[in-house]
Amino acid sequence: MSKQFDVLVIGGGPGGYVAAIRAAQLGFSAACCESNPYADPKGEPRLGGTCLNVGCIPSKALLHTSHLFEEANHSFEAQGIKVGKATIDVPVMKGRKDTVVTQLTSGIKGLFKKNKVTLLNGHGSFVGKEGDLWKVKVGAEEVLAKQVIIATGSKARHLPGVAVDQKIVMDNEGALNQESVPKKLAIIGAGVIGLEMGSVWRRVGAEVTVLEALPDFLGAADQDVAKEALKLFTKQGLDIHCGVKIGEIKTSKKGVSIAYETKDGKAEKLEADRLIVSIGRVPNTDGLNAEAVGLKLTERGMVEVDGHCQTNLPGVWAVGDVVRGPMLAHKAMEEAVMVAELMAGQAGHCNFDTIPFVIYTSPEIAWVGKTEQQLKAEGIAYKAGKIPFLANGRALGMGDPSGFVKMLACAQTDRILGVHIIGANASELISEAVVAMEFGGASEDLARICHAHPTLSEAVHEAALACDKRPLHF
Amino acid sequence: MSKQFDVLVIGGGPGGYVAAIRAAQLGFSAACCESNPYADPKGEPRLGGTCLNVGCIPSKALLHTSHLFEEANHSFEAQGIKVGKATIDVPVMKGRKDTVVTQLTSGIKGLFKKNKVTLLNGHGSFVGKEGDLWKVKVGAEEVLAKQVIIATGSKARHLPGVAVDQKIVMDNEGALNQESVPKKLAIIGAGVIGLEMGSVWRRVGAEVTVLEALPDFLGAADQDVAKEALKLFTKQGLDIHCGVKIGEIKTSKKGVSIAYETKDGKAEKLEADRLIVSIGRVPNTDGLNAEAVGLKLTERGMVEVDGHCQTNLPGVWAVGDVVRGPMLAHKAMEEAVMVAELMAGQAGHCNFDTIPFVIYTSPEIAWVGKTEQQLKAEGIAYKAGKIPFLANGRALGMGDPSGFVKMLACAQTDRILGVHIIGANASELISEAVVAMEFGGASEDLARICHAHPTLSEAVHEAALACDKRPLHF
Repeated sequence: MSKQFDVLVIGGGPGGYVAAIRAAQLGFSAACCESNPYADPKGEPRLGGTCLNVGCIPSKALLHTSHLFEEANHSFEAQGIKVGKATIDVPVMKGRKDTVVTQLTSGIKGLFKKNKVTLLNGHGSFVGKEGDLWKVKVGAEEVLAKQVIIATGSKARHLPGVAVDQKIVMDNEGALNQESVPKKLAIIGAGVIGLEMGSVWRRVGAEVTVLEALPDFLGAADQDVAKEALKLFTKQGLDIHCGVKIGEIKTSKKGVSIAYETKDGKAEKLEADRLIVSIGRVPNTDGLNAEAVGLKLTERGMVEVDGHCQTNLPGVWAVGDVVRGPMLAHKAMEEAVMVAELMAGQAGHCNFDTIPFVIYTSPEIAWVGKTEQQLKAEGIAYKAGKIPFLANGRALGMGDPSGFVKMLACAQTDRILGVHIIGANASELISEAVVAMEFGGASEDLARICHAHPTLSEAVHEAALACDKRPLHF
Repeated sequence: MSKQFDVLVIGGGPGGYVAAIRAAQLGFSAACCESNPYADPKGEPRLGGTCLNVGCIPSKALLHTSHLFEEANHSFEAQGIKVGKATIDVPVMKGRKDTVVTQLTSGIKGLFKKNKVTLLNGHGSFVGKEGDLWKVKVGAEEVLAKQVIIATGSKARHLPGVAVDQKIVMDNEGALNQESVPKKLAIIGAGVIGLEMGSVWRRVGAEVTVLEALPDFLGAADQDVAKEALKLFTKQGLDIHCGVKIGEIKTSKKGVSIAYETKDGKAEKLEADRLIVSIGRVPNTDGLNAEAVGLKLTERGMVEVDGHCQTNLPGVWAVGDVVRGPMLAHKAMEEAVMVAELMAGQAGHCNFDTIPFVIYTSPEIAWVGKTEQQLKAEGIAYKAGKIPFLANGRALGMGDPSGFVKMLACAQTDRILGVHIIGANASELISEAVVAMEFGGASEDLARICHAHPTLSEAVHEAALACDKRPLHF
């Protein structure tokens, strides 16, 4: 007889494992299946999906190490710390990264046990219905479930005709697992992954060139932030070209040659030892056998869902990268919790307007809410407060005063509409802005809330004061 | 004729300079006088008081450098960063610290110019009244002001009979300005200053012993946090003894010998090269000539004020370390803004219940609101959520997963009553807790707010979930 569950989650990434855990907490019998390309040596599936295995977590481990490496070679002397010239042992750097990944992925197995979630080994693929139950093939077995949550995530988009061998031509997976520092590294795509990976390998010694097809650098970010970022990254040594047209790409065992046209129409050729392709991600819907059950996909291959992550099929939901919206782990987790709670008859809700965005470069970039260009385009009257970290004592104490905090508030109501940060620890500073916005807070609220001294978060406080043209420290 | 101002602020520290700037912003003619023991080479007063000159800011600069130094010797190898053994050049470390201090103190002079605040050189001392105006002697001249704000701050408390020469026996000033690493460093007083300075000098090579008279380590902190801190600091090599009775202290040119009795009544003697005395701070009211105008001081020498920082004299206010409440720069700044706004007829207010506390050790300690022991003593029913950073991906990625976040919420209403953090960047993480508490937020609110992944602030999110026994990642 087939195994039967109240809830079957297809995919064990942040959307999937959180959905399974929350469903189990709410009293459902829950299973989560994971085929998993990142199997451990024993062939056991590793949970955590792209995020934990080849995304957010390993990149942050490498970013941390490479940041310290850069500090050693660039800021130590001026601080009185004497070390010889630092060199990097890439296998050791990578080894620590792998240890962190293993610790976290196995931690999720522990969470499954604690919350009584059944882990199934294999990809989930729809078969049909059996009475009220959905029948899903998982590996060799068939599983029945009252409700199904699709959380199959996304995979890197590749360039047509350019094979990714993860050695010479890499996507995020290969980019994280290079065994040595490339002398010349080409990156196509100046998005989050391209910039983070470019930063890691530049810091440890690679000469990095980034080619971006779009005319604006970081077009989704507030353009003040994007301009500052471009200036700072260029100063660090990232050679960034926007508005290029990629032409023929030739690969050999020795490297790669990329023909491209600059935004001014000039034909150029970039020779590099390796290439990272980071031109976006595509939803993983291939293996779902969607057509067997009539699951509706969008033209772009995503699972079509409403605001509550409900698909066109009753009892079938989808969350995370496989549906519309930003491909962010925390967005997937929010949707996962919402779906589990809706299943339990609770008032699950996901506020897409207050999902923070982070880029873990140095300085970090983080924002929530609307950008200035969005407000202009939408004709919303706003006021802005902008404070450079140069006016912040903690930033100076850390020797890292680059960047700023910019707050945008409604001209009529003073309600905070967006907060944009480029600077050290921006990823952590953004959280108070998210909290304030979730409470419908005004810039005056943050201006009147005490901020510990000396902290970087005082720059958020000052930006709030600056919305009313009364900053105290600028 | 005497200079005349709407507002005269006595003292140019965080309370004083902010009061003067805010008063000027509100349309008052404002002056700020500073006698200043930290005069620059030209004899010009340096603004910023203890905080900027010999407190928060220089300590954070040294903490940053010494933290990196410790990383170089302890975490680099495991991350694949190869450097020779790091050594510290104390004069260079100190020089950078001095540069940061100069940059910030001169920045405040710029803010005075921008906001049209008059800077007067000299200590302010009451003379009497002239009609409706207060007459205050500042250096050689007499100044008239409609309203006076006393912001004279505090100074280190010394041990009776133990002269502080800032070479062998030091307070915060000498502790920050040591020209070399002491072999053996004794610290009396395990408060914020003792622990921060102990951390700096231990990291760069000193053998540090801390003697504390009080029986509980960090008695004002949540005792869960204090216990974790004691465990971690001890592991780092700080030798901390609480509940001791300090006996005779003998100093010589070579060092210091401290007789003390342990909490078990055993007589001990600590020999050290240098001693830092960090046993609290006393308000600076000596030079005010308070008796000339009948300004009321408390038994402990503070200026007596009400909740709005009003003294017993009409038109005379006092803010910061010189009045009741925690001696924190950001508390002084809050009071300063309140007083200036009250003077202008606005609804100035200072919420003493949501002032965050920070200790910049490694890991950092930060909290806001009530501790668990306070709630127990007050008989308030509460629930608690506690999440270790070991369950946080960012902390693991940073190689710094020590500590935890603990949230306390009202058992009946779920309103957040206190948040206690020990861990990396606790100083920044506390700000979202302060914001949530200012909005009267519940743990459920923070549990339902999206937190960027991977960030340390996710531990705050999980602690909120844990208040309802539904953490997702623990």
